[in-house]
Amino acid sequence: MPDFGHGRLVVVGVGLIGGSLALALKHAGAMQSVVGVGRDRANLDAARSLGIADRIYGLNEPWTKELAAADLVVLATPVGSMAGLFASIAPALGPKTLITDVGSTKQDVIAAARMHLGAALARFVPGHPIAGSERSGASAASAALFRDRSVVLTPLAETDSDAVNQVAAWWARCGATVHFLDAARHDSILAAVSHLPHVLAYALVADVARRADGAEYLSYAGTGFRDFTRLAASEPAMWRDVCIANAAALRRELTLYRGELERIDALIAQGDSAALLALFERARAAREDWLVRQAEVDRG
Amino acid sequence: MPDFGHGRLVVVGVGLIGGSLALALKHAGAMQSVVGVGRDRANLDAARSLGIADRIYGLNEPWTKELAAADLVVLATPVGSMAGLFASIAPALGPKTLITDVGSTKQDVIAAARMHLGAALARFVPGHPIAGSERSGASAASAALFRDRSVVLTPLAETDSDAVNQVAAWWARCGATVHFLDAARHDSILAAVSHLPHVLAYALVADVARRADGAEYLSYAGTGFRDFTRLAASEPAMWRDVCIANAAALRRELTLYRGELERIDALIAQGDSAALLALFERARAAREDWLVRQAEVDRG
Repeated sequence: MPDFGHGRLVVVGVGLIGGSLALALKHAGAMQSVVGVGRDRANLDAARSLGIADRIYGLNEPWTKELAAADLVVLATPVGSMAGLFASIAPALGPKTLITDVGSTKQDVIAAARMHLGAALARFVPGHPIAGSERSGASAASAALFRDRSVVLTPLAETDSDAVNQVAAWWARCGATVHFLDAARHDSILAAVSHLPHVLAYALVADVARRADGAEYLSYAGTGFRDFTRLAASEPAMWRDVCIANAAALRRELTLYRGELERIDALIAQGDSAALLALFERARAAREDWLVRQAEVDRG
Repeated sequence: MPDFGHGRLVVVGVGLIGGSLALALKHAGAMQSVVGVGRDRANLDAARSLGIADRIYGLNEPWTKELAAADLVVLATPVGSMAGLFASIAPALGPKTLITDVGSTKQDVIAAARMHLGAALARFVPGHPIAGSERSGASAASAALFRDRSVVLTPLAETDSDAVNQVAAWWARCGATVHFLDAARHDSILAAVSHLPHVLAYALVADVARRADGAEYLSYAGTGFRDFTRLAASEPAMWRDVCIANAAALRRELTLYRGELERIDALIAQGDSAALLALFERARAAREDWLVRQAEVDRG
């Protein structure tokens, strides 16, 4: 295994996730130098002054020249921009440069990689860390973001197994637990437990805010509303891309969820106290069980 | 104004809200003795050992004899039980005992009070503190729960203004800001910003958990799912009662919300990136504005 204590990392998109991964790999001694690439100059400057990136490039600058000597390039931008990035990096990659991404959807990113990466496709390890917060930008980055969190890798049939092992090892160095899933299965599961809740949170705020007296309504909203809508503080462009990229699975989830709301509405209309109570109790118990299991996983 | 440093309080339902109100009034020096009444013996014992209640009674014990000398009786049980409680307290109230409640819905509680309180109706000040958490029971109570929080009072045309002023003054002693609303307006607003989000959170957990592979789905849920579904940890019986009590307003909100989801589903189906981005951006901005205004209110 190469000595990655001298490793060179290129991160495209030095936001919460990309920035945190760079920091975590540096702190773990797994990477020595980090090149940060992005669109937003102020964010790049912040990344440099925070020690996330040693050198920074705007996307319109000649950053791809850094790839020839890079051990790893991480794409950490909204998934809608990844096809263009694969096309940009393909001709510039070094012969051993590994490629990964942190996109919230995997089938679309894999399709883009297939279209553009050519022989380097075997060195592409699709990934998705299940971590983050509604905060964004390099200033929100933290070396501890992935500690005790799950990272899902969705390698292709043609992915080189050494590449998979190496990317998994880097994530482990960041404190994450690595899981492997089929990309389609990943997209189905995340549609339900991540993409749908984001849409539901945006929808609730939009629903209340579009009223003429929306501000009065919101003035009576409390901490429950704040927690429930925290996901609506997330980066709109990122989630727009996720909705478009994972449209089929997300729309299936929206249909199931609307069905659940119709069932509850019918119970309220019928005044069916017992069934309503049973549904709320089942939901509370399921969430409680989930939290207990998560705590067990965290304790290792 | 009577010297409430010697005040006697009876709290029916010594849970998070009732227990916190008792603690806050004691700490503020506004009440000297507290009688705690409830269904659950272990919770009552906890309330006594935590200093919330000085004397405790099960609901099947002769607690109403404490009302003759009480300055205030607070009903802090699920709203579905309030009609029965009004009927129980009406014959036992002292001539100056004030009555209030902390129910999340107001029109149904007022209707129950009208039916049972007789002449004491003028001394009933309907109330709803917009505070709480998903935790419940006396052990979760805190004297600080209402600090910088809103309390809505919805007095009737026949409510004695001295009673309103006194109940408002007590809430102010707990650190809360008192607002006045018409009961129907209260129920409409809270349906949107509180009751609906609770239903949406229960619905999401139920929707995922009912699947044969629900546990696998949940194993990939992260902190966003946890925050979004925190409301589904709330007391099921309390929220069942709210749904039944405020059925009309809540069902109107469910219809509006399902309409919002249909609009978003259509945008995803059409791949309308621009409209989806605009919707997410509007929602994020509205939430941001709300948080800024809330912070201004908190700073006073």
